[in-house]
Formats: sequence, C-alpha cells, structure tokens
Amino acid sequence: MASRDGLVLGIDLGGTDCKFGVVDSKGRVIRKARHRTQNENGPEQALALIAAHAREILGSDSMSGVGMGVPGPMSSREGIVFQAPNLQGWIDIPVREILETRLGIPVELHNDANAAAYGEYWAGAGRGACAMVLFTLGTGIGGGIIIDGELYTGPDDTAGELGHMIINFEGPPCGCGSHGCLEAYASATAIRRTVREAVASGQKTSIHIPKGREHNFGAKAVYDAAESGDKFAQDVLWRAGVALGIGAANIINIFNPDVIVYSGAMTHAGDYIFDSLRQVAHERSFKKPSLRVKITIAELGEDAGIIGAAGLALKKLQQGG
Amino acid sequence: MASRDGLVLGIDLGGTDCKFGVVDSKGRVIRKARHRTQNENGPEQALALIAAHAREILGSDSMSGVGMGVPGPMSSREGIVFQAPNLQGWIDIPVREILETRLGIPVELHNDANAAAYGEYWAGAGRGACAMVLFTLGTGIGGGIIIDGELYTGPDDTAGELGHMIINFEGPPCGCGSHGCLEAYASATAIRRTVREAVASGQKTSIHIPKGREHNFGAKAVYDAAESGDKFAQDVLWRAGVALGIGAANIINIFNPDVIVYSGAMTHAGDYIFDSLRQVAHERSFKKPSLRVKITIAELGEDAGIIGAAGLALKKLQQGG
Repeated sequence: MASRDGLVLGIDLGGTDCKFGVVDSKGRVIRKARHRTQNENGPEQALALIAAHAREILGSDSMSGVGMGVPGPMSSREGIVFQAPNLQGWIDIPVREILETRLGIPVELHNDANAAAYGEYWAGAGRGACAMVLFTLGTGIGGGIIIDGELYTGPDDTAGELGHMIINFEGPPCGCGSHGCLEAYASATAIRRTVREAVASGQKTSIHIPKGREHNFGAKAVYDAAESGDKFAQDVLWRAGVALGIGAANIINIFNPDVIVYSGAMTHAGDYIFDSLRQVAHERSFKKPSLRVKITIAELGEDAGIIGAAGLALKKLQQGG
Repeated sequence: MASRDGLVLGIDLGGTDCKFGVVDSKGRVIRKARHRTQNENGPEQALALIAAHAREILGSDSMSGVGMGVPGPMSSREGIVFQAPNLQGWIDIPVREILETRLGIPVELHNDANAAAYGEYWAGAGRGACAMVLFTLGTGIGGGIIIDGELYTGPDDTAGELGHMIINFEGPPCGCGSHGCLEAYASATAIRRTVREAVASGQKTSIHIPKGREHNFGAKAVYDAAESGDKFAQDVLWRAGVALGIGAANIINIFNPDVIVYSGAMTHAGDYIFDSLRQVAHERSFKKPSLRVKITIAELGEDAGIIGAAGLALKKLQQGG
C-alpha cells in the first residue's frame, strides 16, 4: 500500500510497561499496544519478547523502520544502552543490533525523555518551534532540547539533564550526588519527602498517605488535597512551581526558546503548580525572551514517547542514515 | 590580489575603545588598530568615525565584508542595536544600514560576547568542538554558545545570557532585577562588593583599594593580594570559582559540551579561581559529560571579538547571505 510507505514503529520501553505504536509520516498513531516489560530472564529474552510484540503489531504492514525510547544512559550513535536503572541486567546492551537482527529493519535508539521531546515538537505542543525545551515531571525530572528542528543530545548523548540544573548550590541533597538540583525541589519524590517530613513533625493536612506507602504514595494525593482546599498541600505545590519557575527562567535566559513544555504525571497538578511556575519564570528572566516564551503542558500524553521515537527513526531514514 | 579575496574586517565596539582588525580566511589578524569610541555627538557621528577608521585600515585592500560586535541587546537579523548601556543615545540604531551605506560592503552585526565565542571556536580554545560554551568574565558575566559549528542565539538573539543563570534562588540581588544569578557571585563587580563590605566590617586584608575608587577599583588588586599570600583575597577568589563551577556544572549537564572557555580580565586570577571552578564543575555534574569537558582559558585575548565578528561575517558571505 503506497500510502503506508512512511509507517514507522515507535516503542517506548519503561521499567514496568513497554508501549508500541504504528506511527504514520504525520506523527499520527495508527494503532497501539502495551505489554508488560518482562525482564525476569534478562535483557536478551526481554528483547526477544519485544521483537515478537513488534512483529505482532506490524502484522502485514510493511514498515520502514523502528524507533525506540529507552530509560537510562545510552548512545544513540552506537545503539547501545549503557544502563537502565529500572531494568536489571541492562548493562552495555547492543539493543539496536539485537533488534535489527530480529526484525530485519533499521532500528534507532534514543533516551526516553529525548524521544518524548521530539514527539511534542513533531506532533504536539512544540509544533513549529525554532527552539523548544521539554521538562518531564515524574519520579525524577528529565529533559529534552530541540534546536532548529533537531534533537540536541551533545557528543555523548547526555545533554538535556535539566532536572540536575542546580538552582540553589547550598540546597538539599539530590539522588545524583549533587545538591540543590531542580529535581531535589520539584520531582514527585521531593514533594513526597516534603509531605512526609511535615506530617512527621506534626503538620496538619488532609493529604492521605496509605499505611506502608510513606515512600511511594501517589503525588496525586497531594493534588487531591489541594483541590479540596488543603492550604498545606497548596503551599507544597506552589513551592514546587517556584522551583520549576527558576529552572524555566534559566532556560529562558540560556536558550531564548519559543516554548517550554512540561510532561508527566505531575502536570495534573495544573494551576497549583503552573501559577507560581509562570509567575517566577517571567519575573526572573529577561523581558524580551520572557515575552516570547510559551509555557505549556504537553499535548500527546502517554503517546509522546512512541511518536517521538518513531519520528526520530523516520528522520534518520529520510536523511539516508 | 587573489590571495586576499577572503579578507574581512572585524570591529569590536566597546564603551571606551573600538578595535579594528583585518582578518584572513583562517582567522588570522593581518593588521589591527584601536581607537577611542567617540560618542560625544551621538551614534550617527560615532558611526561616521567608525566608518572612517574602517576605510583607513582597509587601505587599498579589497574587503568582502565587515563583521561587528556590539555591546548590548540587538538583532542580528535586522542589523539593529536596541540598546548599548555604555553608549549614550544608542537606542534602536540601524547600525548595519548606516555602515553598509558608508562602506559599500555587507555588514554583519552580533552581540560582543557571541562574537568572542565564535572567535574562540573558529581560531582559539574551542577549535574543532561540536559544542562549546564561552563565559566572559568582567564587570558582568556574558556568554556565547556554539553548537555544531553554529553560533546559537535563539529566535530573538537573546540566548546565552549565562551570567544570569540563577545558582541560588534565595541569593543576593543582581543588577538584572533577579537574584542569585551567577553574575551576582562571580563578576568583578560582585568580587569588589564582597571586598568592600568585608573591609568595612573590619576584615584585615592587604588588598589595596585606592581612595575614592571603592566602587571601581581593579579586580587585579585582589589577584595581586592573593598572589602575595593574603588569605582573605585567596578565599574571595576561591568562592567566586565555586560559583563559576556551579554554573559550569549546569552547563555540563545541559549541553554536554566538549569545551567551556573563559575569557575576560578575571581569568588573570588563574588558579585562584580555576582550582575551585574545576573541582566544583566536576563534582556537581554527571560523570560522562564531566569526563569529556575541557575547562580552559580563552586563547585569543583581546582579539577574540574582532576575529569572531569577522568570522561570522565571512560565514554569512559564504552561505550567500
């Protein structure tokens, strides 16, 4: 079918689930599937299953390539995943080679936050931008940078670690070993810690923390409490927004971007985070780039990763790579 | 003369002096001159004088274009200087048009820190880099970003305001209206303030502040004191280096650059600043990009601006702009 020549398969590999989507040349998802990431028997077998699921969703369609977003440090150029913190045994795995052998078509690998950034640029909130920066707000804070239509990843594919921008060099410790990183103030993990510590020291709040889930209760409990009028919950989210606003101000002064996009579960906190975020971003940056920048929530939701991974693969194919 | 076809004139306009250099296609300065910036009678007349000096240094050589670095916000695309804080009356001046009319050859304008960054990339400490970031350390802190051989300035030509990266959102006020900016910790102005305040509150130091120059004594007085063993002076510079190291760590995590280059008078403080700068930059950034990055001092000294401005003009001419 000629009209389907441009089809690419996008895969978004996560620690729990692996998403698959057949994506057309306009960035539209034709059909999709989600399977549990079965890593119990190691990466080789997990990849064999992924290849099987890929073939399944392809069906009789001819596909020109596969793009895959992976969680953790990797080399896009070499097609190797150096480490996937949430997937045991994934150390220096030549994912591209393994999947190309199994599928017989070109495979392109990218970091998952970068894939999501490219997805939003190609078919979401960043369409038409010269310069776009994406923050992924979740357990941690990731980032992706698009400049002149190209994903910018730097010579080692490590650029865009926006969650580890230091916004207070004397600030609280961060999981990365540094302190005062944006992530230490505004990730779901940081918000959980703030709530836990405040409750332990007697803060009154309606935030409901289920017994035994003190370290991994859903951040949604905080938005729900804010929504129901809990002043403490509102303040916690306001302060996370302030930290994110400082990060945004830095990005505005450094990149002069057209748009800063926020994705991830934390965006569900809406104005409880975005009111202070926008206010601080504008107050703490230069006027001209502050007037240009649009600060917005991602449009593609969970599909950003598969769409972006597919888009990056398509781009590579078009460049004859 | 065929061998001189590629000659371009670089001009580096400052508040006090204006530097001129005839630059060849390899980024070498063939000859140069320096004149006082005579702005007493306003921008039109200042530009007429600049054009006269340009014709003077050109002599009988045929020149393919002129590149000029200007201090302050401007639009490279439109060739307009919006404001030059140190040049009275320079508000929305169509510098490119004025000079092109007077000189009869294409003129290309850039912000001075961006021109210096391109100079160091083209013919100095950043040669061969995929990604290079430059910090100019002086009265204020400026910056320039080179990605894949291109100067990155953003859609409004305001990108690269690296001195206004917030490194402590609760930090001291900055001239830009924000607070906790890198510039508020590590510019010559910030260092002067630290010294002044410490001396006023009884700090013993051998730093010599000339009578009546409490607000603009040369930062050199601080390096000289450090060099002669003054512990307070050494500590002031060490702490400025820590702040610069935090800024560098952020740049490493955001850009994964091959090289970070420092230019400007403050670099003369050498290891008194760079020991802590390097240590903090490596400690507070991710390992992989930290292993790649070279942290170094600019090579072109005062010529960076004229070489970079000339290089950017040459690049534009070669692209048929």
